[in-house]
Amino acid sequence: MEVKWINQGGVTSARGFKAAGVAAGIKSGSKKDMALVMSECEALVGATFTSNQVKAAPVKLSMQHAKKGKVRAVVFNSGNANACTGLRGIRDAQATAATTAEKLNIRKSEVLVCSTGRIGVPLPLAKIKRGVGKLARKLTSNGGKVAAKAIMTTDTYVKECAVKVEIDGREIIIGGMAKGAGMIHPDMATMLCCITTDAALDLPTLRRATSDAVEQSFNRISVDGDTSTNDTVFVLSNGMAMSGTLTRSHADFAKFQAALNRVMSHLARLIIEDGEGITKVVELTVKGAASNADAKRVAEAIARSPLVKTSWCGNDPNWGRLMDVIGYSGSKVREDMVDIYYNGIAAAKGGLASNTPMSRLRKEVRRSSFAITIDLHLGLGSYWLLINDLTELYVTLNKGE
Amino acid sequence: MEVKWINQGGVTSARGFKAAGVAAGIKSGSKKDMALVMSECEALVGATFTSNQVKAAPVKLSMQHAKKGKVRAVVFNSGNANACTGLRGIRDAQATAATTAEKLNIRKSEVLVCSTGRIGVPLPLAKIKRGVGKLARKLTSNGGKVAAKAIMTTDTYVKECAVKVEIDGREIIIGGMAKGAGMIHPDMATMLCCITTDAALDLPTLRRATSDAVEQSFNRISVDGDTSTNDTVFVLSNGMAMSGTLTRSHADFAKFQAALNRVMSHLARLIIEDGEGITKVVELTVKGAASNADAKRVAEAIARSPLVKTSWCGNDPNWGRLMDVIGYSGSKVREDMVDIYYNGIAAAKGGLASNTPMSRLRKEVRRSSFAITIDLHLGLGSYWLLINDLTELYVTLNKGE
Repeated sequence: MEVKWINQGGVTSARGFKAAGVAAGIKSGSKKDMALVMSECEALVGATFTSNQVKAAPVKLSMQHAKKGKVRAVVFNSGNANACTGLRGIRDAQATAATTAEKLNIRKSEVLVCSTGRIGVPLPLAKIKRGVGKLARKLTSNGGKVAAKAIMTTDTYVKECAVKVEIDGREIIIGGMAKGAGMIHPDMATMLCCITTDAALDLPTLRRATSDAVEQSFNRISVDGDTSTNDTVFVLSNGMAMSGTLTRSHADFAKFQAALNRVMSHLARLIIEDGEGITKVVELTVKGAASNADAKRVAEAIARSPLVKTSWCGNDPNWGRLMDVIGYSGSKVREDMVDIYYNGIAAAKGGLASNTPMSRLRKEVRRSSFAITIDLHLGLGSYWLLINDLTELYVTLNKGE
Repeated sequence: MEVKWINQGGVTSARGFKAAGVAAGIKSGSKKDMALVMSECEALVGATFTSNQVKAAPVKLSMQHAKKGKVRAVVFNSGNANACTGLRGIRDAQATAATTAEKLNIRKSEVLVCSTGRIGVPLPLAKIKRGVGKLARKLTSNGGKVAAKAIMTTDTYVKECAVKVEIDGREIIIGGMAKGAGMIHPDMATMLCCITTDAALDLPTLRRATSDAVEQSFNRISVDGDTSTNDTVFVLSNGMAMSGTLTRSHADFAKFQAALNRVMSHLARLIIEDGEGITKVVELTVKGAASNADAKRVAEAIARSPLVKTSWCGNDPNWGRLMDVIGYSGSKVREDMVDIYYNGIAAAKGGLASNTPMSRLRKEVRRSSFAITIDLHLGLGSYWLLINDLTELYVTLNKGE
């Protein structure tokens, strides 16, 4: 498909996008806590929001604004989620959008708002407004990294990337940034993600491409089974590469989708690798299920099992705990048909211990990243998830004292 | 109801029951790892088994034997679950029952078998057989405590109790023992429980009384959301108190049920208080839900949330994380209707922070046991669970290395 990585790429790699990140005083010290991404011209937007019924104020506002399909800027703050803040929260999110619009000389409805941080605490609006002023002054076409830094919460590193691909014989760029770390479970992770592209797409195509890519990336990662109030993915397309407008029937559309999937998958993987306190990344595949839904049930039950996840942290190839979870997952199961593999090496065959020595299996589980495949041998249903282990450090980081 | 506690009571408090516990060498060192409970005369049995589709061999065997309704003995081992062991596991469980029957001079079908410990490892049958011989020789009418000790796995203390209550003007006794600690989630906990009574009940009444009591005790506790392959509750009734046979229409039946509930609730509470690595016991009540099923959905989602459970361990009254879970629980929810209380003190009203100072809430969360009440204000549905926090020590204990 000739999708090529751009070295040090990010949310400002695509033509016509600027960004900035500043310390607005929401977080203590001089930590960066606000970011702004802006398109020089009108951009179309595809968006996916948390499925949580309890939605943060910025999510509610951004859902309205994204519905219109045309935007110019996305303003972010970390340190405060502006969730469970009622009418005041909505007014604060509106004021954030209004201030941003004023400083950038655009319409309020062209501004999307993202917040991440503690739930239930009102937004410090005066600080936010001053922060927006600073951001507007600092916007630059190489501001991607500093913006990516400013949206971090418990993340230990910046998450950004960009790719290029040829559409209609012209090079288009897709780049983006994300934050994650905790409260990560499909649909979707506690994460914010903003992707920009200078390709041109019609709005229905952009929207569908966005949700298709999210389904194969951010909806396939789980750190702790908790779906947040603030999860948001935006894809902004401004057409500044001057390639033709992509529709689903365009000859190069598949290339674009592959490139977008690549960017989102990479950012999702970065989130999992930076999961709070983790030591292991596990690629879990469930196959041979009676249906895809059954395969998903098994995968998600495993992603939520503290006993399974702690065993990985202890380098323990404890396939018995996997059998236990498979059994209570609610999926159709025949115990004597189940095979379990670590990196392709059989731990259990037909529901029984294989003759692989434990020491051999332990070698695989010691790796910082390994694959577990579960074959239920009942049908063609399959599902995969990217997950990690549960460690003492996860608990320590989330105790909040 | 005049249900009275019996000091130091346990599985041999009721007339005609003997027990023993020995070290059979299944666990390392000289740790006790086998137990036997026997009734001097034929007993009827009520039983509840794990809902996990992957059932251990002793569960499969005991389901068959309990179906007949008449038993004489229950033989236990810890250190090995005899789960995921296939045909060999079944034969081993049968051999355990056969050896026990032979030593006690009873029928094989009158023996129930319980195992707990690691999954996927074949039972050391020679050791088990020798252990049964020792147990048979050591049976005594004050062997309750040593039996309760022998079924422990990661439990830090013995779990037993007994009560007495008058039926037909005669005192009857109900006593029992349990083990728990990890892999605990409704339905049911990773637990074994054996209850004995010298009351007489007809079989359908005993069975219904057993499942009703389990529903209000062992099915209401969650340590880690993992339902095991081996969970079993037995209630043996031998009628040796010479009271009349209880049926559901008997005037004193409610007294019996209350006493049985008391015993199971106490044992369930002991299991939760001894949850692996825990520092807090939380009585969670969800009310005002659109249905009981909705209330249960919210309660179980909270019981599974690592973010909520770690916040308790850090003494953090983080009601925002509760709102988050309520939102993704799948229950019908209106964010602006939700009230959350810690020990009756409002943390959130109408989905927003109450004006209770955080320091006041923190004082409640610091207690080793506290109540959380969530009122959804949508209907009459309610549900409760007894759960605990997630700590670094839980992870350490379950890492397995």
